[in-house]
Amino acid sequence: MDPTEDFLRGELAEKQTSIAAQASVVGELKANDAAKELIDATVEALNALKAEKASIERRLQAVVLGNGGKDNGSGFVNKDDFRQAVVNTLERRLFYIPSFKIYGGVAGLYDYGPPGCAVKSNVLAFWRQHFVLEENMLEVDCPCVTPEVVLKASGHVDKFTDLMVKDEKTRTCYRADHLLKDFCKDRLEKDLGIDPEKAAELKHVLAVLDDLSADELGTKIREYGITAPDAKNPLSAPYPFNLMFQTSIGPSGLIPGYLRPETAQGIFVNFKDLYYYNGNKLPFAAAQIGQAFRNEISPRQGLLRVREFTLAEIEHFVDPDDKLHPKFSDVANLEFLMFPRDVQTSGQSARRMHLGEAVSRGIINNETLGYFIGRVYLFLVCLGVDKERLRFRQHLANEMAHYAADCWDAEIECSYGWIECVGIADRSAYDLHAHTDESGVPLVAYEKFAKPREVEELVIAPVKRELGLAFKGNQKMVVEALEAMNEREAMEMKAVLESEGEVQFHVCTLEKDVTIKKNMVTIFKERKKEHQRVFTPSVIEPSFGIGRIIYCLYEHSYYTRPSKAGDEQLNVFRFPPLVAPIKCTVFPLVQNQQYEEVAKHIARSLTAAGISYKIDMTDALFPLPHEVNLKKKMLFSFATCVAFSGTSIGKRYARTDELGVPFAITVDSISSVTIRERDSKVQIRVDVEEVASVVKEVTDGQSTWVDMLYKYNMPASMPQDE
Amino acid sequence: MDPTEDFLRGELAEKQTSIAAQASVVGELKANDAAKELIDATVEALNALKAEKASIERRLQAVVLGNGGKDNGSGFVNKDDFRQAVVNTLERRLFYIPSFKIYGGVAGLYDYGPPGCAVKSNVLAFWRQHFVLEENMLEVDCPCVTPEVVLKASGHVDKFTDLMVKDEKTRTCYRADHLLKDFCKDRLEKDLGIDPEKAAELKHVLAVLDDLSADELGTKIREYGITAPDAKNPLSAPYPFNLMFQTSIGPSGLIPGYLRPETAQGIFVNFKDLYYYNGNKLPFAAAQIGQAFRNEISPRQGLLRVREFTLAEIEHFVDPDDKLHPKFSDVANLEFLMFPRDVQTSGQSARRMHLGEAVSRGIINNETLGYFIGRVYLFLVCLGVDKERLRFRQHLANEMAHYAADCWDAEIECSYGWIECVGIADRSAYDLHAHTDESGVPLVAYEKFAKPREVEELVIAPVKRELGLAFKGNQKMVVEALEAMNEREAMEMKAVLESEGEVQFHVCTLEKDVTIKKNMVTIFKERKKEHQRVFTPSVIEPSFGIGRIIYCLYEHSYYTRPSKAGDEQLNVFRFPPLVAPIKCTVFPLVQNQQYEEVAKHIARSLTAAGISYKIDMTDALFPLPHEVNLKKKMLFSFATCVAFSGTSIGKRYARTDELGVPFAITVDSISSVTIRERDSKVQIRVDVEEVASVVKEVTDGQSTWVDMLYKYNMPASMPQDE
Repeated sequence: MDPTEDFLRGELAEKQTSIAAQASVVGELKANDAAKELIDATVEALNALKAEKASIERRLQAVVLGNGGKDNGSGFVNKDDFRQAVVNTLERRLFYIPSFKIYGGVAGLYDYGPPGCAVKSNVLAFWRQHFVLEENMLEVDCPCVTPEVVLKASGHVDKFTDLMVKDEKTRTCYRADHLLKDFCKDRLEKDLGIDPEKAAELKHVLAVLDDLSADELGTKIREYGITAPDAKNPLSAPYPFNLMFQTSIGPSGLIPGYLRPETAQGIFVNFKDLYYYNGNKLPFAAAQIGQAFRNEISPRQGLLRVREFTLAEIEHFVDPDDKLHPKFSDVANLEFLMFPRDVQTSGQSARRMHLGEAVSRGIINNETLGYFIGRVYLFLVCLGVDKERLRFRQHLANEMAHYAADCWDAEIECSYGWIECVGIADRSAYDLHAHTDESGVPLVAYEKFAKPREVEELVIAPVKRELGLAFKGNQKMVVEALEAMNEREAMEMKAVLESEGEVQFHVCTLEKDVTIKKNMVTIFKERKKEHQRVFTPSVIEPSFGIGRIIYCLYEHSYYTRPSKAGDEQLNVFRFPPLVAPIKCTVFPLVQNQQYEEVAKHIARSLTAAGISYKIDMTDALFPLPHEVNLKKKMLFSFATCVAFSGTSIGKRYARTDELGVPFAITVDSISSVTIRERDSKVQIRVDVEEVASVVKEVTDGQSTWVDMLYKYNMPASMPQDE
Repeated sequence: MDPTEDFLRGELAEKQTSIAAQASVVGELKANDAAKELIDATVEALNALKAEKASIERRLQAVVLGNGGKDNGSGFVNKDDFRQAVVNTLERRLFYIPSFKIYGGVAGLYDYGPPGCAVKSNVLAFWRQHFVLEENMLEVDCPCVTPEVVLKASGHVDKFTDLMVKDEKTRTCYRADHLLKDFCKDRLEKDLGIDPEKAAELKHVLAVLDDLSADELGTKIREYGITAPDAKNPLSAPYPFNLMFQTSIGPSGLIPGYLRPETAQGIFVNFKDLYYYNGNKLPFAAAQIGQAFRNEISPRQGLLRVREFTLAEIEHFVDPDDKLHPKFSDVANLEFLMFPRDVQTSGQSARRMHLGEAVSRGIINNETLGYFIGRVYLFLVCLGVDKERLRFRQHLANEMAHYAADCWDAEIECSYGWIECVGIADRSAYDLHAHTDESGVPLVAYEKFAKPREVEELVIAPVKRELGLAFKGNQKMVVEALEAMNEREAMEMKAVLESEGEVQFHVCTLEKDVTIKKNMVTIFKERKKEHQRVFTPSVIEPSFGIGRIIYCLYEHSYYTRPSKAGDEQLNVFRFPPLVAPIKCTVFPLVQNQQYEEVAKHIARSLTAAGISYKIDMTDALFPLPHEVNLKKKMLFSFATCVAFSGTSIGKRYARTDELGVPFAITVDSISSVTIRERDSKVQIRVDVEEVASVVKEVTDGQSTWVDMLYKYNMPASMPQDE
């Protein structure tokens, strides 16, 4: 897939051949007691080759491990180190907590701790603002517990499965494709000198992994001799495991139910009511935010593959004959990384494209789909996702369900690779059809004609008496075959019957031809008036994995910078105010009742302005015991205290930086205070009475920090303590 | 329970006796051919008695049916009619939808449709503002899927049950207490002439219903001959049914799990991390909003008893030795309906009380509990709950768990009676103890002493060698018994040993006395220094049933008023702007491109201001076909159209009133528009550019509608069309 990797593997193989040849030359020279100078020169050349090989290996290693040695602005080169640093900070500051930790936890279940919960709630509020409010969507809220019939209709009961293998001795379960994937990746990463042909084969397996059947997976697992990762025992053949959590509804145990694997079905089954609510008009969109559940076989990748997660889904219902979007022009000029089907299959990388062009050139199927792709792009970028690590990848033909018209994933690159975070699919009329069929309730829309339209309708009227006489017990099959003719077939029969008086007619169910005479069937066209068109709307579905977006956001927002003393690396999350769990912290510079009163006063005005903050009254002169030697401190006079407390203030800033708090308010006088911005560390001085409104303006996005720098034109100074 | 009812039943019984006596007098007079005047007078007296009886019956009926004939301001006298009218409106306007309706629905599962979902989201946003932000609570978000061990520790696996009976033939399940309750209520409501003693018995059963054991319930069911309501078959004996939905986690089926019945446990198991996050300081509160699940046996009461619902819970952790609250003075002067334990048991009604007094007089156990009661009161009243139909009822001793220190329910009166919507309990250290015991992880808090405290500690040191010689195989039991002595017992033993040299000592596990000699045990007191106090915090838990609050709010907000023509009753929800699903609607008075442009311009400014609205471009001249005869309309000239469209505007207003939309913006010129307030129907005229800010100010609560009436001092007119 990656041309650099293939090239390096080729280079490495060549270099190995050269080294072997050179080594044998050295051996030969030595055996033949050649001149010392000659031997030395040959050995030197051999060593040079070995050094080159080592260099290629290092480059290959970097490519294989995914980041190609690039620094993504985080201060880390190795992606595993980077991930470990992010995850350590996230866990330590309770952005998330493994659920039920005191009981040993449960794989794939995580709690959001206070800052994580606040980030999530901010992301969801912005989602509501950006999609539901902006587009006047109909938001609904349906239960997680879902009766079987609904998920039978949607196909989940039969098809929502992963292939599983079991350790034949311990009965431990594994995802079959994961084992094969791990095997291939492991070989490619660890065995750098692998035969390039073998490498190509392994990479091919990785590429087609998602398409392999149970049999094909089983064959590969046997072929490669893959065993259970824990106990190294032989594995069972792969078999499907349904990923829905099952339960039963009511006390009788007779109503089987599941926890919904997505929120969409709750919207589809309500289509009729929602269409009515919308004044029987199309297009309209319904939206839902809620928990969804997948009983993963063996959850991995931390917050990216979990058993319970929050989905935010939109179902935009539209006339299949008119997928234009009135607001498409608002997003048409956006340019961002797209990865269309043909670019992928030709082995190239994602490229910047103009959205309007992508739609007009037919790369994106229709305007409405394009509109949502553009809106999703804006949503993610506003949250703080790095544009350069965000791409829209079109599904390959084999990835897409047969009914889908087109499908794009918003993928965000993080240390786990490119992760699907939002799926944007034109699912055509599939879901509404499925529920219409299962429930018998027509989920359709109507287009009333201004004046009735005249239409021609084909009428095929078999004359049952004549057919009965001719075909006896086979009469029913002949009648059905006649009625099943399409317009062309029927009109041809009519013509032959009129000219010849009879016709040979193949009846599939009888597996033979029969002779149809003129008196056995009447075929004609009737003119009718139609007052409306009845059709099943198409649905365009943007579906957001909120937890995945948030995790990628954490990675994109995280960076480190040295402490003032330079002795440690401090963690920072560069969240935009929109996302930041707390908008500001408030603390008095020194312990002092007056300053504390000011801090409390500011706190009250922040609450009134609806800004979340944290007030830190920890005595700046009495930092936590492990930070400062208590005895030493007690000897300081007040004057030295201020200077001393500087260290402590620096640590306080570091603590809030680690939570991604954009602003810190330090009370150092009773009339005015400083506001410090997280990333620049620049401070401005603001009157106590203005603080709340300044913070509100900047966090609401009405003003920028730079506006404030101009307005409160303090010497833009780095605070002493940093 | 209700003194009026008892009185009326007594009256009725007396009246019946009088009627019987009078009737027999009439019969006697007739049999004896008494004078016609005498007979007539006696009959007249009999009829008067019958009329009096009928009047008593009507009064009794009204009392029994619950509303005592009072009009609650909704325009309805009968509570069933009232409920039907509310529910019809709610269902028709999609405030809620029976879930999976096209498949026949599932009892106890409901969707929130667009307006209901918006109301819910507003209630939750206000909850976050009023509790989480105001009190700096630590919000967390834990999964619904919970492993068994957690709910075993909390007691739910063993005790979260209802008693169930089965139809012995059809196997249909019923809640045992519901059947008994229905039977008693039915007899009391329908059989007005019931023997007052029997009535008292039935009422006693209703009062103690929640305390009846399986056996007692079974006995009553047999005694009253209660059969299955549907098929009238005999019933099984009552037996417990666990109300948790069960599932299993992971592919092996070996990890049993449940859907959480409350969100609280997710907070308790995280206590250690949250305490650390809070800087190891008490008090602090954690909060969680999320879905909870109860697999009800036979859900009834519509939205009040459902199988899946949103809970908002607060766990406030506090030092058990210090339950003062620094902000109690903020709520101390509130006065509202309270229903303390002794008032209930003495048969009186809830009474207005001063919160500060209730705490200082010890009616409410402590300040922190009192603070939350006050905050809950403010929360509910701000949402629009009627103060007169809101009371705080203290749990009776038998209702409260043994560990609870005190417990109050915020009950809201609706057509179903007084409904528990918020529980506010001081659960002492129960939950943290339970999880400490089960997990082995100490969930405790520390109070560091400024300087170490000297404490005396009892030391009991059995001399194992001597005890072994004396008791051989029983040595272990004797050692354990000695070590288990409390301070008084130990010091008594020490005294006797010192004076007598030996003592008789009862060892429970041996079930006999043994002789303990002086050399077998050393008992003394040791002085030690303690640096900190270790204790398990108490937890005060306000727990909000969001769906129940919303349903009661619907009932309290609903009223009807006559249409202009007086020919129909129009529905209105008087939601405060805070709660209203949409803050305003925008529509052009007549179809006119200029007006439509203005409407769209206003819509954009509302979106920018973050105000939810609905724009209605339905042609005012072309109302929906069923509303107006199309042919007739086509003949109108433009002049008549304006007048004509009046009707349509009135209908539009009626439609938005029915959704509880507080403001309607009608575009009737290109420079200024009218804003109409829902309940007063008064309009003001505002410049197009000011509309969004006026609506924002009034809906944010910065200004009132009355302020706006003064500011835009239009003649406060009723619009022609209403």
